[in-house]
Amino acid sequence: MKIVALAGGVGGAKLAYGFAQILKPGDLTVIVNTGDDFEHYGLYICPDLDTVCYSLAHIADPLTGWGRAGDTYQSVEEAIKLGGPDWFKIGNKDLGTHLERTRRLKAGQKLSEITRDFCQYWGINSRVFPMTDDKVSTILITAEMGELPFQEYFVHQKCQPSIRAIKYSGADKAKPVPEIFDAIEAASLVVFCPSNPWVSIDPILSVQGIKKAMSKKKVIVVSPIIQGKALKGPAAKMFVELGIEPSAEAVADHYRGLIRGFVYDLLDINLKSKIDQKGIISYTTNTIMRNTTDKARLAEKIIKFSETI
Amino acid sequence: MKIVALAGGVGGAKLAYGFAQILKPGDLTVIVNTGDDFEHYGLYICPDLDTVCYSLAHIADPLTGWGRAGDTYQSVEEAIKLGGPDWFKIGNKDLGTHLERTRRLKAGQKLSEITRDFCQYWGINSRVFPMTDDKVSTILITAEMGELPFQEYFVHQKCQPSIRAIKYSGADKAKPVPEIFDAIEAASLVVFCPSNPWVSIDPILSVQGIKKAMSKKKVIVVSPIIQGKALKGPAAKMFVELGIEPSAEAVADHYRGLIRGFVYDLLDINLKSKIDQKGIISYTTNTIMRNTTDKARLAEKIIKFSETI
Repeated sequence: MKIVALAGGVGGAKLAYGFAQILKPGDLTVIVNTGDDFEHYGLYICPDLDTVCYSLAHIADPLTGWGRAGDTYQSVEEAIKLGGPDWFKIGNKDLGTHLERTRRLKAGQKLSEITRDFCQYWGINSRVFPMTDDKVSTILITAEMGELPFQEYFVHQKCQPSIRAIKYSGADKAKPVPEIFDAIEAASLVVFCPSNPWVSIDPILSVQGIKKAMSKKKVIVVSPIIQGKALKGPAAKMFVELGIEPSAEAVADHYRGLIRGFVYDLLDINLKSKIDQKGIISYTTNTIMRNTTDKARLAEKIIKFSETI
Repeated sequence: MKIVALAGGVGGAKLAYGFAQILKPGDLTVIVNTGDDFEHYGLYICPDLDTVCYSLAHIADPLTGWGRAGDTYQSVEEAIKLGGPDWFKIGNKDLGTHLERTRRLKAGQKLSEITRDFCQYWGINSRVFPMTDDKVSTILITAEMGELPFQEYFVHQKCQPSIRAIKYSGADKAKPVPEIFDAIEAASLVVFCPSNPWVSIDPILSVQGIKKAMSKKKVIVVSPIIQGKALKGPAAKMFVELGIEPSAEAVADHYRGLIRGFVYDLLDINLKSKIDQKGIISYTTNTIMRNTTDKARLAEKIIKFSETI
């Protein structure tokens, strides 16, 4: 069974890992948000791509979900001593990825080609694609600080500023990586992982043609909102600031018209009647992934649920 | 006593360290070759500047003379695993310097300003200037491989190709760092450290105005050639390939018209009559610097010798 998963960072990477455990090699394709990508110390950093790849390669830091397991920090610590910015810490091993990616990009390789090569080196059996090889930047329009690029908002400002609007700068001109269309075409299921709708999934959907390519496919969303909160990150805060009460129901509304199945947490079972009124088929299960067993289990439940749609 | 020292990498850094030990804070100015600078993994690397600064800050690797003491290599090792070039290994701490320098250059700061700030962070009492803030590249024109940038020749090709000629690309348009003129003006002595004449000192002299600024100054050269050989690097091989027998005498000839004093090793005492015929005043002493005492001793001897000129 071929599945396409859309993913942002840690939450998305967890479910992608779950699918990778139970599908045949090559049957999982992950399309990853690159709206967070930015330049830091002259290097090209792709936080979500790296989180997904490190997770799939089982080399991610198990405590944070991002970065490399057992990493150390001398390089950036030295740069900080010399006056460099200290708000985005990069481990030594992680830095190796950014160094080689930057070298290859400067040599004219495409991000999707680089990612394919890296996945091969890391022994990843799934296919991982950045949503585009072009530059798309998620920009938060904030009340206090005006426009902030995602990492500036997320890491540097610790999600403090209030969001007024969000834009995906460059999305109108960006082209999806062509293999994405083949993967969607071949898939019997498209899953939006439990990633932030506003800054992880929507940037992917903003790239011309991706939404349309999925229009005839069975699309299932896993809600990243549980009991009105996000397990990690500012998704719930963003809903509030954009005038919407954060809930699994609000997530279902957010993707209305695009999805056919909706997976949400057992803790939100009280929302069942409201969600079922929305013309989508819903399924409730434990969606919190604490360990590898949880990840594979959730992936399995989603596949079984999809077969009922 | 104010001294200006011209230096390339390891040999030059040793003598600069010697002068720094015995002069008052601020009395030593080191003008450093940047013809070897290159981009690697997207980062801007200044091998000679770093070698001189690390030496003056007493944080250089005591075994190699370059790089940082006690450094580790995870970052570049990871990049190499991903397919990156392995011929120029950079330690983690050393990488911190390149990261912050690259960040600042991209933010529009000048290399000389960055170097000044770094020297302050490292507690260096001497003034260190890159020869120019503009791009000058030492290019080796080789028999086997055509034109090679310095690091490509020196590190990647291990100095194997035969030199036909050397050029300093960009030198005709490069402007010296302005403070260099003030430093030379204020100095009572200019010393060419025992660095490679062709690829360490000549690139500095190739920058418009530097030679002229020194024309009325007492200039002393310390020969990097001892008994026909260089302690380190390809200086002797370059003399041979350019049709000149390598010797302290050849070094004196190389700088003819520019220098007034010449310091060479006791092991070459047999060349004394030949060297003294060249219209320069010579001095012979032990020029091999094995430890910090040797460095300070040689610096002291040079200063005493200069007072006799």
